[in-house]
Amino acid sequence: MISSRLNQDELRTALQRKIDRKTKPPGALGQLEKIALQLGLLQNSLAPEIRNPQAIIFAGDHGISREGVSPYPAEVTGQMVRNFLSGGAAINVFARRAGLELTVVDAGVASELDDLEPPFPDDAHFVRARLGAGSRNFLETDALTRDEVERALETGAQIVRAALARGANLFALGEMGIGNTSSAALLVSVLAPIDIEAAVGRGAGLDDAGLERKLRLLKLARARYAGPVPAAPAAALAQFGGFEIVMLCGAMLAAAAGRAAILVDGFICTAAYLAAWRMNPGIASAAFFAHCSAEEAHAAVLKLLGVRPLLDLDLRLGEGSGAALAAPILCAAADFLRDMASFESAGVSDRSEGA
Amino acid sequence: MISSRLNQDELRTALQRKIDRKTKPPGALGQLEKIALQLGLLQNSLAPEIRNPQAIIFAGDHGISREGVSPYPAEVTGQMVRNFLSGGAAINVFARRAGLELTVVDAGVASELDDLEPPFPDDAHFVRARLGAGSRNFLETDALTRDEVERALETGAQIVRAALARGANLFALGEMGIGNTSSAALLVSVLAPIDIEAAVGRGAGLDDAGLERKLRLLKLARARYAGPVPAAPAAALAQFGGFEIVMLCGAMLAAAAGRAAILVDGFICTAAYLAAWRMNPGIASAAFFAHCSAEEAHAAVLKLLGVRPLLDLDLRLGEGSGAALAAPILCAAADFLRDMASFESAGVSDRSEGA
Repeated sequence: MISSRLNQDELRTALQRKIDRKTKPPGALGQLEKIALQLGLLQNSLAPEIRNPQAIIFAGDHGISREGVSPYPAEVTGQMVRNFLSGGAAINVFARRAGLELTVVDAGVASELDDLEPPFPDDAHFVRARLGAGSRNFLETDALTRDEVERALETGAQIVRAALARGANLFALGEMGIGNTSSAALLVSVLAPIDIEAAVGRGAGLDDAGLERKLRLLKLARARYAGPVPAAPAAALAQFGGFEIVMLCGAMLAAAAGRAAILVDGFICTAAYLAAWRMNPGIASAAFFAHCSAEEAHAAVLKLLGVRPLLDLDLRLGEGSGAALAAPILCAAADFLRDMASFESAGVSDRSEGA
Repeated sequence: MISSRLNQDELRTALQRKIDRKTKPPGALGQLEKIALQLGLLQNSLAPEIRNPQAIIFAGDHGISREGVSPYPAEVTGQMVRNFLSGGAAINVFARRAGLELTVVDAGVASELDDLEPPFPDDAHFVRARLGAGSRNFLETDALTRDEVERALETGAQIVRAALARGANLFALGEMGIGNTSSAALLVSVLAPIDIEAAVGRGAGLDDAGLERKLRLLKLARARYAGPVPAAPAAALAQFGGFEIVMLCGAMLAAAAGRAAILVDGFICTAAYLAAWRMNPGIASAAFFAHCSAEEAHAAVLKLLGVRPLLDLDLRLGEGSGAALAAPILCAAADFLRDMASFESAGVSDRSEGA
């Protein structure tokens, strides 16, 4: 039901009234009522519907990973891409359960992936959009050129636009990249901004000594930043970004432009969102935050954005796993607004006056 | 995979090792790893699986509802049973999305429901197990006789045993009953125990004056209780219970006895759980708590039980809605333990030593 003749205020009023006439006490579905309202406004409809939901995982390597900022070796990025395309990773399992179509994007993986050929399990897609063999080491130079940032933004957008053209209107977005919590920490430190000490966490599981080393290195990298704070997003992405993070940013901008819902996964996706939001604050109307990561800085950034995540399960895996786990909640919100009976249609008595 | 030759300690060790060898950093799936471990122990299996998951909603009326403790009239209980069996309530929508088989039980509804005949939408079942036209008003007398408590416990257990016999191993349990937050408040006040002031909330949406009236009445009811604190569960159920709450209690005991997982919904189901847990603390190994309700006392009772709910979405609807929304998380936890690749099987490098 497209309500093209209603302006946004009228639509909001009509949606709230429809939510309130459902057979439940007003407000009794809590956050789901807010999600349903947001989906209705986003889809310009009193009967929003999640169609052809997508999980898209962008993978890229990071020059900083050579400095030992992760407990895992850099080749794990490519190995995990292979795992995604063999159906054995967490995102495969969760996307299957949630009914999400899976696309894995080589945004800039260092390892050779030429032998990967479809068909893949669960009809997963593999998009070769590699813009380089990983980013440069931002302790030495900018991680990406401004041209690489532009191309990555456009590539991420194109991948989303192709799915929009197939009717998709929900994008659960995720990433894979050894070293990318370091990239994300620097991005949020200059974009939020928050203190670099508060932005750095254990990532994939650093011990105390590893965390100390990571913090020392990232402070050096942060000291190299000479621009304004909060940073201009494209400049921050060039200095500290990675191919997968910039493509996520482009994907989010394109999804919001297409009035599709974005499910932002964890800390790294939120860093990408922060850059996208600095480019176009209007994307907030399309964004849903899947979960609060166990990575320490995530809660601080979510608070700064003024958003409440759907789940809080101490996840810190990435690869869109939290977004896939949260997707059924968005679907349920659309379902209740579309399919639940009203007091009138069900013949249920509303609140008694003065009781 | 049944690991009948492993004792619980060996099984726990084997499960934890299997979880840790999955292609993810140790602990990166947070609470899902704990859920998977609990499901494995419960099913005595290294490959737990959710089979034929059930949503069972027990409905009953309460004598206390005549005192104006709810903003809704008592006939809404029966009207909502009709709504469940017409497919129009929140639980219908959410059970459909989560793939739960729905059973609605008339545990003791005051209204006439004789005309309800299958088939119902989504193949929902209707179980006529009415033990009376609602409970008695506990301001005047015990809500139930001890015999009614025994029969309700057994009826709830029988309904679960029938589903166990069909192979079900997950029970999302819910309730419907105008006035039942009052019953639940008194039960938790004597069973937890917590102060009656802390146990009383707005239920389906009382305003300040209504809340004050409810608290005044429930303090009078609480003052009539003369037994030990914490209370003996059967005595507490007789004095303050309702048919649906006691059947929930019996259902939980039977599910745990059958080594099936119990998804406890909101405040009222947690009150029923508290009584069941006082009868048999061993049921804790089968219990998962779906969400933290917006009903004020729920968080306090969950804390006292030492449990962490899966969702926190400000829900306060009941009818198993939160349990149905949380069910996919339990399924995802079993899925990852069963279906994810290990570092070895996927050829992914594990943590580098000393990085």
